[in-house]
Amino acid sequence: MKKVINDPEYVVEEMLEGMTYAYPQYVKKLDNANVIVRKDSKLDKVALVSGGGSGHEPSHGGFVGYGMLDGAVAGAVFTSPTPDQVYEAIKAVANDAGVLLVVKNYTGDVMNFDMAKEMAEMEGIKVDSVIVDDDVAVENSTWTIGRRGIAGTIFVHKLAGAKAETGATLEEVKAVAEKVINNVRSMGMALTPCTVPAAGKPNFTLDENEMEIGMGIHGEPGTHREELKTADEIVTHLMDKILADMNLAKGDEVAILVNGLGGTPLMEQFIINRKVNKILEEKKINIYKTILGEYMTSIEMAGFSISLLKLDDELKVLLDAKADTPAFKQF
Amino acid sequence: MKKVINDPEYVVEEMLEGMTYAYPQYVKKLDNANVIVRKDSKLDKVALVSGGGSGHEPSHGGFVGYGMLDGAVAGAVFTSPTPDQVYEAIKAVANDAGVLLVVKNYTGDVMNFDMAKEMAEMEGIKVDSVIVDDDVAVENSTWTIGRRGIAGTIFVHKLAGAKAETGATLEEVKAVAEKVINNVRSMGMALTPCTVPAAGKPNFTLDENEMEIGMGIHGEPGTHREELKTADEIVTHLMDKILADMNLAKGDEVAILVNGLGGTPLMEQFIINRKVNKILEEKKINIYKTILGEYMTSIEMAGFSISLLKLDDELKVLLDAKADTPAFKQF
Repeated sequence: MKKVINDPEYVVEEMLEGMTYAYPQYVKKLDNANVIVRKDSKLDKVALVSGGGSGHEPSHGGFVGYGMLDGAVAGAVFTSPTPDQVYEAIKAVANDAGVLLVVKNYTGDVMNFDMAKEMAEMEGIKVDSVIVDDDVAVENSTWTIGRRGIAGTIFVHKLAGAKAETGATLEEVKAVAEKVINNVRSMGMALTPCTVPAAGKPNFTLDENEMEIGMGIHGEPGTHREELKTADEIVTHLMDKILADMNLAKGDEVAILVNGLGGTPLMEQFIINRKVNKILEEKKINIYKTILGEYMTSIEMAGFSISLLKLDDELKVLLDAKADTPAFKQF
Repeated sequence: MKKVINDPEYVVEEMLEGMTYAYPQYVKKLDNANVIVRKDSKLDKVALVSGGGSGHEPSHGGFVGYGMLDGAVAGAVFTSPTPDQVYEAIKAVANDAGVLLVVKNYTGDVMNFDMAKEMAEMEGIKVDSVIVDDDVAVENSTWTIGRRGIAGTIFVHKLAGAKAETGATLEEVKAVAEKVINNVRSMGMALTPCTVPAAGKPNFTLDENEMEIGMGIHGEPGTHREELKTADEIVTHLMDKILADMNLAKGDEVAILVNGLGGTPLMEQFIINRKVNKILEEKKINIYKTILGEYMTSIEMAGFSISLLKLDDELKVLLDAKADTPAFKQF
């Protein structure tokens, strides 16, 4: 295992410590849990909490800050956080306006966030939740019933987070989150596996000239493996699958997220984005905004995902709203 | 070669096309050269131009925007841009306030930017230049006389760019750039090679349990190879070398840049940053601000560099000033 780490047992703790050292102006870590919260928590607005297994950095701690999340729960690498951890996050950020949990659709996450929600409700905290299932690749998967939640989750953080900053009610913030979930579709592929530090070896193997289409962000199987093709061919395939699942007409407006999985350099991400744009231009679908970079990673996996979000006037305003977090800033 | 690309011959052109598709609100590409300039070029202020070989993305096109660069020249991968290319960049952004070239210390870059400077001067354009040589690893290297310029260059872009936005003269902007160059030191290491697309194979090899200390951003040899150690041991070694070359006393203030080379995930970068902080805390050196992520990469190489910038009151103000570029934003 070729990693710049210390004891594999402590990667999450040491990572969170390094994160809070890097961003003291934005975040702090709870003393009693692997939870990152805003430096100024307990604001007078609906609080957003997300999280999941670690290994997807900057998700989710990197999105804690103005206009996005209030708290992020970090489980062990590729492992759902416990209900107790999620409950600590809810308690830390909860106020009278309530808390919205943004959960990616993995059976463990859904179950544990739900238990935490019940624990919080028993304490009189107003909590609701949404489940993101943007990955069009496969129905049901290694750790999921239904579709998986992947990089499209970033749009939920951004737009529901922006709505919460306006002073909207929990119901209104949840409605935005659900609209984004209804309007976003994603699909990815991988060139290489990644190595969970505690396991010490890659989580699967791919031949030198082989790729996996539709792979999940924990290395869950996708639709198929095939010989490596050109960027344009790969993007065309992913876009065909994504667009087939969206109801886009000429003149519709979308936001694009080209998301690197950790090991794929910007050089390739830009070449991918070029083809995404050419396909949308040809279909006369208007690109309102592009986000490109590493947002929802699989540690050091080489690969990427494409997400498209169909926009309307409400969503455009929320997409354009100010955000100021370690990993996503917008004036 | 496992890359998501099309024809290796066109990676730079396609990358720049994908970049301008992603950031139309910030940048455009010159029609006649691989040069990225601000959408609103020809501003009434000193213009900053940087660049070099491609493969270091987001350097340098990603830093074109408010408070940093006005133009970025993209050579072939790991190859100096030609004098003609640099000259086109200078012409595109030049105005009466003059142009400052920020050049990393590689023999080809220095020569070609210098020739472009002379070409521009013959056209009556006011141009000056600075050479960044922040890498303390080795004196002289594969393509360099003296020390190499690496990630510390980002601080030059940021602080000299901020000075230019104040309406300062070319001499004043150059003085800030030189102060930053005098005050910044960097050093890196690598776990893996990278592959230049046109070459089709890795630029060197490292054994499964081997790392290279002090490696350059084009795979130039560093100080030595040794068995992979823990993050804390590696960081301690790099910090020893960096601090030995700086004149820091208790109570001094520094900015940190932990820079991923492309294949090293944020998880590891945060663990690296943790130890950088602990070393500085122990020496009672105050950390004013931390920048962490991929800023000066070597395509998909796994590895990182640490840069430290010694601050004073002037540099702190410039470091804190607003920047709004694709790859570096600060309110």
